[in-house]
Amino acid sequence: MLNTLSTPAALIDAPRLQRNLAQMQQRISALGVHLRPHVKTSKCLPLVQAQLALGAQGITVSTLKEAAQFAAAGINDITYAVGIAPAKLPQVLALRRAGCALKILTDNAASATAIADFGRAHGEAFEVLIEIDTDGHRSGIAPESADLITVGRALHEGGMQLTGVLTHAGASYECNTSAALQAIAEQERAGCVRAAQRLRAAGLPCPVVSVGSTPTALSALQLDGVTEVRAGVYVFMDLVMCNVGVCTQADVALSVLTTVIGHQLDKGWALVDAGWMAMSRDRGTQQQAIDYGYGQVCSVDGTPLPGYVLSGANQEHGILSHTGAGGPGAAVPGAGDDIAARFPVGTLLRILPNHACATAAQFGAYQVIDAAGGLAEWPRFNGW
Amino acid sequence: MLNTLSTPAALIDAPRLQRNLAQMQQRISALGVHLRPHVKTSKCLPLVQAQLALGAQGITVSTLKEAAQFAAAGINDITYAVGIAPAKLPQVLALRRAGCALKILTDNAASATAIADFGRAHGEAFEVLIEIDTDGHRSGIAPESADLITVGRALHEGGMQLTGVLTHAGASYECNTSAALQAIAEQERAGCVRAAQRLRAAGLPCPVVSVGSTPTALSALQLDGVTEVRAGVYVFMDLVMCNVGVCTQADVALSVLTTVIGHQLDKGWALVDAGWMAMSRDRGTQQQAIDYGYGQVCSVDGTPLPGYVLSGANQEHGILSHTGAGGPGAAVPGAGDDIAARFPVGTLLRILPNHACATAAQFGAYQVIDAAGGLAEWPRFNGW
Repeated sequence: MLNTLSTPAALIDAPRLQRNLAQMQQRISALGVHLRPHVKTSKCLPLVQAQLALGAQGITVSTLKEAAQFAAAGINDITYAVGIAPAKLPQVLALRRAGCALKILTDNAASATAIADFGRAHGEAFEVLIEIDTDGHRSGIAPESADLITVGRALHEGGMQLTGVLTHAGASYECNTSAALQAIAEQERAGCVRAAQRLRAAGLPCPVVSVGSTPTALSALQLDGVTEVRAGVYVFMDLVMCNVGVCTQADVALSVLTTVIGHQLDKGWALVDAGWMAMSRDRGTQQQAIDYGYGQVCSVDGTPLPGYVLSGANQEHGILSHTGAGGPGAAVPGAGDDIAARFPVGTLLRILPNHACATAAQFGAYQVIDAAGGLAEWPRFNGW
Repeated sequence: MLNTLSTPAALIDAPRLQRNLAQMQQRISALGVHLRPHVKTSKCLPLVQAQLALGAQGITVSTLKEAAQFAAAGINDITYAVGIAPAKLPQVLALRRAGCALKILTDNAASATAIADFGRAHGEAFEVLIEIDTDGHRSGIAPESADLITVGRALHEGGMQLTGVLTHAGASYECNTSAALQAIAEQERAGCVRAAQRLRAAGLPCPVVSVGSTPTALSALQLDGVTEVRAGVYVFMDLVMCNVGVCTQADVALSVLTTVIGHQLDKGWALVDAGWMAMSRDRGTQQQAIDYGYGQVCSVDGTPLPGYVLSGANQEHGILSHTGAGGPGAAVPGAGDDIAARFPVGTLLRILPNHACATAAQFGAYQVIDAAGGLAEWPRFNGW
């Protein structure tokens, strides 16, 4: 069936996807909290509907376009987990007026004041979460910061619904041992719960305590005080997550289907029609234990071919080679001698991506292959 | 006017674009050859129509979707400059039957035979170029290789139209002096002309000798024996091209409009709503003389703010900081102290991209600002 597809194509292995979805839902349910999946990874309605069917409670989005698209499909419990730019409040208001229980995020007094002022001016009590910084990697207020109470008061006393606190331990992507992952998961949990306690001690409401990332969601030993977990990339998994240690290549549900178009025999290269436009420019494994270049090469049935990676990429060209200790680009002497015999022109291959969120974003649709080899097309959208 | 746009947005500075288009056309015309611009950079009909209006002779594409889209708009002289996968020949045939003079590319006997077999079976004499490798960076046949004549014969004797030879000196991106650029341009020219001479000496036709990349197109001192030049990124220019030395920041016509959404005062960071989803993951300046992180920060009117770059990026978050000798991420002590005063929440900024082809591909449309500040939206497409 795959030879009916035009390459490059974004391929979803449906059994792997279903297994990834079920395992995360079961794990988070067993920890006694809700799962609010981050749909920025897939931006795909059938996939998100599968998550909700398994028990997910609401969704997380990274753009207001995601909020609008999923709300239009009847999914109305949505958290927009990027600090709000005040100029976007009219869009938020329009979505709420259309029936979407859209929750927004802030980590500073300027935005909080702008939210409250705009909300009061329009008779809208926005639901607002305060972003907490539990690992120093990006945005958010430190759990012990005086700013936390200042922002909480600006929202609450300004007439908004102070909905809770939210954190994302993005630093978990830099871990690669169970001990380190459990430690960052506990740091994420404890910091966010502490922020909630401080708000409540100050007489402010804080019903929601939202944490999450795929590595911490899969590593947390307990989630006392947490009400919901957010995770995104677990739906597809990828080579970065393999290096972090929360999956294996057999769990990676997204690949790029590509065709061999030529060779450079003296270099041990095969050229394929998946370049960085298909794989994305994400080189997330570059600093990790195993550097996969622009992706791990697999046979068309999905079996990884150890040592073969996309060692280079131009816009629509990928360079496939066998790598040794020298990493991508350092062809192993001898290994490339039979590159044209092993990968003749026209050969179909699957390439596992470094970072599924980035690779998926290069496509307008997914080709979904089921256990029987049947194909379906699922749409995805991009943009803002 | 820019404050009417939702951020992030892909912004084209129309006067800079027009200047870039005119300068390239004038330069290539003065060298006595045709310009066949590579439209993979913009994938935008109004922009390509502007190139044709200035004198471009046909276009170059990187995907068959580009060919189909531009052919549908009446642009029928098209070269698909990626080695053909035999499975794509039915699409090529359909486009030719619809009136598009679509030229295809090969660098090996397997594809050449497949093209000839398919062409004869369908009564179509495909126009085929042979790809020449003049710098070892990717695909193509070396000018002195015996394979060149083998492939040429397979096409010509197989009944196809052997249209010529084509090369792309991608290695020019690694140069950063006028002398090196002139040398690689001459190497590209000489290698491609030599391949054409060898084909002709073997009694084979070779009317077209096609070379090009933006750096070599802007550096070649003479193009004897060449019939056309292809170049793509010159329309927008970018920070990689600044480092190569073929433009300055004042020539970069593409930027990403973004909004400040928060700060981390102790780190000297402002957070903006342009992450890697807007900028792309391209870190093309990482190995160059000046590393701009994920992009050069400019004020909303387009004035570069020296030292301020996007030092980090998550999917929808960019980290803006001042960099010193330590490069992106190494905030200069003291320089970040006033980050919130300099860039308050809500501030609009423009970010110049590392690689315009990659950044533009993250968007579905361009916002075009003219000299008077007026705005227009130009569509672009993505995918295959």
